[in-house]
Amino acid sequence: MSETDFIDRLKAITTHPAARGLTDDVAMMPFGRHKLVMTHDMMVEGVHFLPDADPADVAWKLVAVNLSDLAAKGAKPLGVLLGYGRTSGDQWDAAFVEGLKQAIDRFGVPLLGGDTVAMGDNAPRTFGLTAIGEAKGHIVPSRSNAKPGHAVYVTGSIGDAWAGLQIASGALRSSDIDTTAFLLKAHTRPTPRLEDGRILSNLVSSMMDISDGLLLDASRIAEASGVLIEIDLAEVPLSRQFQTLVGDDHDARIQAATGGDDYQLLFTASPETVLSIPMTCVGFCRPGSGLQLHSHGERLELPAHLGFMHA
Amino acid sequence: MSETDFIDRLKAITTHPAARGLTDDVAMMPFGRHKLVMTHDMMVEGVHFLPDADPADVAWKLVAVNLSDLAAKGAKPLGVLLGYGRTSGDQWDAAFVEGLKQAIDRFGVPLLGGDTVAMGDNAPRTFGLTAIGEAKGHIVPSRSNAKPGHAVYVTGSIGDAWAGLQIASGALRSSDIDTTAFLLKAHTRPTPRLEDGRILSNLVSSMMDISDGLLLDASRIAEASGVLIEIDLAEVPLSRQFQTLVGDDHDARIQAATGGDDYQLLFTASPETVLSIPMTCVGFCRPGSGLQLHSHGERLELPAHLGFMHA
Repeated sequence: MSETDFIDRLKAITTHPAARGLTDDVAMMPFGRHKLVMTHDMMVEGVHFLPDADPADVAWKLVAVNLSDLAAKGAKPLGVLLGYGRTSGDQWDAAFVEGLKQAIDRFGVPLLGGDTVAMGDNAPRTFGLTAIGEAKGHIVPSRSNAKPGHAVYVTGSIGDAWAGLQIASGALRSSDIDTTAFLLKAHTRPTPRLEDGRILSNLVSSMMDISDGLLLDASRIAEASGVLIEIDLAEVPLSRQFQTLVGDDHDARIQAATGGDDYQLLFTASPETVLSIPMTCVGFCRPGSGLQLHSHGERLELPAHLGFMHA
Repeated sequence: MSETDFIDRLKAITTHPAARGLTDDVAMMPFGRHKLVMTHDMMVEGVHFLPDADPADVAWKLVAVNLSDLAAKGAKPLGVLLGYGRTSGDQWDAAFVEGLKQAIDRFGVPLLGGDTVAMGDNAPRTFGLTAIGEAKGHIVPSRSNAKPGHAVYVTGSIGDAWAGLQIASGALRSSDIDTTAFLLKAHTRPTPRLEDGRILSNLVSSMMDISDGLLLDASRIAEASGVLIEIDLAEVPLSRQFQTLVGDDHDARIQAATGGDDYQLLFTASPETVLSIPMTCVGFCRPGSGLQLHSHGERLELPAHLGFMHA
């Protein structure tokens, strides 16, 4: 049974509307006069982080990836619960707590509780984090309301975390210290776009965060909304540092658009809607289905992998 | 670093009042005119369940132990989020989903979302569940408000899950089919006392669920409340089935009172308070600190282990 088959079985028993059919990044439940937004993501050693990763970075990322899901719904984080599966290594655990403190302080979200278990020394460290937030807007955007004619936007620059991973793994290197530091930080210390998400949530027709790759995540909005999405590869915003390390040609742009771990926001809106944050239009929604790739008006073949597919 | 040291480090960065200093089973946060109650518990293969356990029972217990924490706060469950760390075994996963469905149907709590990760086939299956509930009462009981003179009560009978585990592991056996079935079910399919918890929450001075053993959990209320708790071992309610399998003597009663996994409610209240549910008074709070054990008025030595201590 693949992960997809397993999730199909879970979907079959998930009938409450708050679960959004397990097709969104979060659950959303009216609570009194407010809306609760909830998400849970896991990270496993050897799968989501390398055994030699800095434990403080692992803790930061665990918080950041969950808050990024809240950001994509315009939700204000209320708190997090930590599930901590320990193995050996006191220093590892102490450094994790340090990184956890840095993240919750930086994002202003309290640690509320959780559970700690000893997993045995041969098991991979396994962590889960639940983030709970409050959506104040009238609309909590999902993936499913993009319309033909709507523009497709991203915040920030794309591909920096992928480039940082290439540096961390030794696959690429730069002699420029600032370039190296900037890209490594994008990989190890992503920043959820909480403020942008709150500003956008009542204005967009769909929104999600880019975790698995711009092209793959765009294809998910296309599928959920029943539209064709055209992405113009030439418009994908690349940082100066990405261009210094990886370049700006077709291959570099494909890497940026499929690398994932960006934790930028990907959203659609009517082109007339005034959106008062820095962002880049990378494409348009059309009648139809699926994803198409263009560059300077010319149709390109889709790459074999649109992003990071889970096993 | 022991789990206690690690939790001390977490406590140092957990300053929000909703976290209750990580000394309660749940986090409790006012939200609008309501109160959110949140808990997260993990279960790891080889630690919390055996590799040959029925996957449906594992799923049931994962839900039940989390809802039991909500029950002890008088909270109504709103939903659960599942973190599912898969290894191999399609049938295992399918049976888990079946048990999950049985539990959420039985307890009337929707599955809202979560995360699925592939952990690698040599890793232990690792699951986390977050339960979110709503407390409507004015008071959400903690462990810390028991007063000298208050009586100590438990719901149901104590030790049945421990006796069931002895049968499951082959350490004890009964020729009586009903006894075996009753005790095995107490071990594999615990029932959180949600209704009892809601009735009690505004009437008790402290409340928690019994997960690690009656004596150990009573000592936690004593410590959090700054009282001495005297438990009368002769008053600990044993089921007919427990007595059939294990007996009724001092050793049997010590096993019942330290075995854990009962998921009954343990609570304190003024002896004048009318509590309209079936329950048993097992002791009293006195000025002082710690735990004392008695039987028919005679002081007993405390056993070396009061319950299941985490590594």
